[in-house]
Amino acid sequence: MTFYQQLEQHYKKMAKLEHLAAICRWDQATMMPEGGNQARSEALAELAVLHHQQATDIKLKVWFSEVDREPLSKEQRASVIEMKRQWQQANLLPSDLVEAQSLAANKCEHAWRSQRGKNDWQSYSTNLEKVVKLARQEAQIRADATGLSRYDALLDLYEPGMTSKQLDILFDEVKSWLPELIEQIQEKQIHDQVILPLGPFPVAQQQQLSLAMMEKLGFDFNHGRLDISTHPFCGGVPTDVRITTRYDENDFTSALMGVIHETGHARYEQGLPEKWSGLPVGKARSMGIHESQSLFFEMQISRSENFIELIAPAAAEQFNRIDDPAITAENLTLLNTRVTPGYIRVDADEVTYPAHVILRYEIERDLINGHINVADIPELWDRKMSEYLGLSTKGNFTDGCMQDIHWSFGSFGYFPSYTLGAMYAAQFMAAMSKEMNVANLIRERNLQPIFNWLDRHVWKRGSTVSTEQILIDATGESLNASYFKEHLIARYLN
Amino acid sequence: MTFYQQLEQHYKKMAKLEHLAAICRWDQATMMPEGGNQARSEALAELAVLHHQQATDIKLKVWFSEVDREPLSKEQRASVIEMKRQWQQANLLPSDLVEAQSLAANKCEHAWRSQRGKNDWQSYSTNLEKVVKLARQEAQIRADATGLSRYDALLDLYEPGMTSKQLDILFDEVKSWLPELIEQIQEKQIHDQVILPLGPFPVAQQQQLSLAMMEKLGFDFNHGRLDISTHPFCGGVPTDVRITTRYDENDFTSALMGVIHETGHARYEQGLPEKWSGLPVGKARSMGIHESQSLFFEMQISRSENFIELIAPAAAEQFNRIDDPAITAENLTLLNTRVTPGYIRVDADEVTYPAHVILRYEIERDLINGHINVADIPELWDRKMSEYLGLSTKGNFTDGCMQDIHWSFGSFGYFPSYTLGAMYAAQFMAAMSKEMNVANLIRERNLQPIFNWLDRHVWKRGSTVSTEQILIDATGESLNASYFKEHLIARYLN
Ligand SMILES: [Zn+2]
Ligand SMILES: [Zn+2]
Repeated sequence: MTFYQQLEQHYKKMAKLEHLAAICRWDQATMMPEGGNQARSEALAELAVLHHQQATDIKLKVWFSEVDREPLSKEQRASVIEMKRQWQQANLLPSDLVEAQSLAANKCEHAWRSQRGKNDWQSYSTNLEKVVKLARQEAQIRADATGLSRYDALLDLYEPGMTSKQLDILFDEVKSWLPELIEQIQEKQIHDQVILPLGPFPVAQQQQLSLAMMEKLGFDFNHGRLDISTHPFCGGVPTDVRITTRYDENDFTSALMGVIHETGHARYEQGLPEKWSGLPVGKARSMGIHESQSLFFEMQISRSENFIELIAPAAAEQFNRIDDPAITAENLTLLNTRVTPGYIRVDADEVTYPAHVILRYEIERDLINGHINVADIPELWDRKMSEYLGLSTKGNFTDGCMQDIHWSFGSFGYFPSYTLGAMYAAQFMAAMSKEMNVANLIRERNLQPIFNWLDRHVWKRGSTVSTEQILIDATGESLNASYFKEHLIARYLN
Repeated sequence: MTFYQQLEQHYKKMAKLEHLAAICRWDQATMMPEGGNQARSEALAELAVLHHQQATDIKLKVWFSEVDREPLSKEQRASVIEMKRQWQQANLLPSDLVEAQSLAANKCEHAWRSQRGKNDWQSYSTNLEKVVKLARQEAQIRADATGLSRYDALLDLYEPGMTSKQLDILFDEVKSWLPELIEQIQEKQIHDQVILPLGPFPVAQQQQLSLAMMEKLGFDFNHGRLDISTHPFCGGVPTDVRITTRYDENDFTSALMGVIHETGHARYEQGLPEKWSGLPVGKARSMGIHESQSLFFEMQISRSENFIELIAPAAAEQFNRIDDPAITAENLTLLNTRVTPGYIRVDADEVTYPAHVILRYEIERDLINGHINVADIPELWDRKMSEYLGLSTKGNFTDGCMQDIHWSFGSFGYFPSYTLGAMYAAQFMAAMSKEMNVANLIRERNLQPIFNWLDRHVWKRGSTVSTEQILIDATGESLNASYFKEHLIARYLN
């Protein structure tokens, strides 16, 4: 066996452990009775230890130095690069830091669950300070190893190749037009007569509708399924993708749009290159690209008037509401494109969402780089919310800087992915539209050419090339935020 | 750490891998879409390799020799004995034999799935011969290591301590009275007017009825759940027991009795000693004891007239058939105690079932010990079926020696557990009945004292003592088949 073959074998073995962990985590969130949680968590922790042992196996050092001397194809070189990235990341952190982080994050997150409701910033910030302190240590170690800045070294975990220098330019541009755009849209929408569909919408019927839309969107039910969990997610493995949603009997659109979003994530996973299955190079390219696929399905396709013309009659029939004026294409389109600045990121619409992300990015960047401290967060949050969305969060921590789980859990550098995803999605749509009349295809219920484009330009590339290269090959240029702006103007101001 | 503590830690780690395997196998049988099977099987095989590495870890040899010099409690000694049993079994077989067996079994079982329907004994027997040849090699290795006969060395895997010498005596006794008993019961039942309940019985309602009965039988839904699979089983882990059933819209009793049976298995698992959780000594004692608990729930409790008086109104209400003469306690009792000799073991009633088991035991015993060959099976099967149940299987392999999966899959020594379980169950009931009026308790819907007895005498003992000791402590004597005979006479001839 060549060293490359040995490496492949080793990483494919690890992927098998990841498979079992993914299924057991899915089960934990969807099927497991509460009383099984303790033993399950311990079993998963043990698997993580075994996985880490394999990820840091001493043999790898030799293999990686030897493999460079072997004649490899271009794709195999890319494969080695991704293995090495995973290997270096696994080896970088001392285990006492990892353990301290895990303890601090669990403590902070656990307490946050009750502190948030009590608006108790004082107690929360004490825990968060420990989490931030450790995250800064991690960032420093990663910065030293990669030559990146501290924040960029964390960002690189989720969005390899992206830097805060690029983000600053992108986001500053968005900030230059977003507040005015929001105002214009609100003015335009002020006289819209939106009818809220009145529940109850039985869960069984919502599920049928969700499954029907998943089918229209090409979800492969021979390699995946839909279930229920408190927090919707896309899990499992590429050969068996598990997506989840939660149903609200008073509002069928929230679960439906959630399912469509996760279907985008799922199709990316289902479409990853089989040839590289089980290897790092066969995995999704980045969190931003992943989100671009879910947002392509949710925002670019499914919130378009043409797709809602497909949803509306299906929903009306499913709920036996053929004559309900709230379940017409026209009303559902108004409802699904309503723009309203609000406090809560996860409830935000497509237009105001970037403001929430930019605000968090700017704060976490300065926090990790040591330019601000935890105590500065509330004031900054209030100032930026006022500036970007015209809302004050003074004294309101619950709906302000305590609303997300990310920081409590020690995840810094993740937030930008959401808006990068929206930008990638808009740029993909613009490029795709040069090759085909997407609106027409949706009207004709012929989505296959759309899926084929995504499959060829995104899904099948896995991690064989950089995010930058995916964009260039698919759209002819690097990330360009103007497509996102044009998309918003076309949808909301025309 | 003492050597005992190191051993405990090691076996608890292995239990965590067993946990993940159990949940992923459950998922494979209940939730997984077909297209996920290949990757799942490979992931589980990889986990089995890791588990085997740990089970045969070189350190164990030292630890086991050192632990004998440590001061241990009586229970810790029992714990070490069970660890050693598992360790010796894991180390015994050369890996090329295990691999050859796995290949032969998979091939034989896979082909059997279509050969059975085609009554193709000729092709099937060629595959089975290879499976038997390898099973004999395994038996020889185990016999050399344990000093047992070849067949007994396999039997010992499922029913530790049991020997074919004991089985011969037990089963010969049963054979001395069973054929006549069956005749007498058939004569007595000849004029019974049994009404077959007429479907459809919707799956959702059958499921509600099943859940209601599980609750009555004390299933802990905080530590387990009920789902659907093609082949019903009890899986998962003690903190999260997963039982399954399959529903037939034309016959609600089959799923219901199946669920009750699995509930017995589940309560044993849920009731195992927490103190020893994750250790071999904390596991179920034997396959026979496991089956005794499912049969206690199914046969001893739930097919009794008194329990059916509880089932009947619940079923009538669930199916909205309050006035259906087929869903009365009287009719359901007749239906659930109907005795009819048939070809198929899994369809057999409580009275004829032992005949199916004894037949298989006698054949597999002689097969493994080398006294007969695969080619002799059909004739022996026909002769024994005629002798025990008055039915000929000449030329009918489908409903004869090709009906079970066990041998195809290389499982020899398992069949006796079914009838041992029925005997243990009857003996437990006889002993319990000396302490309380079981029939009255069931009539009063007060099952807790029954569960408490089983918990104390069986569940909480785990594997801290031998099967023999469990019987003696619980019933005052070793296994005695006459309790089973008395149970059958009391239920079917009085
Ligand atoms: Zn998403
Ligand atoms: Zn059973």
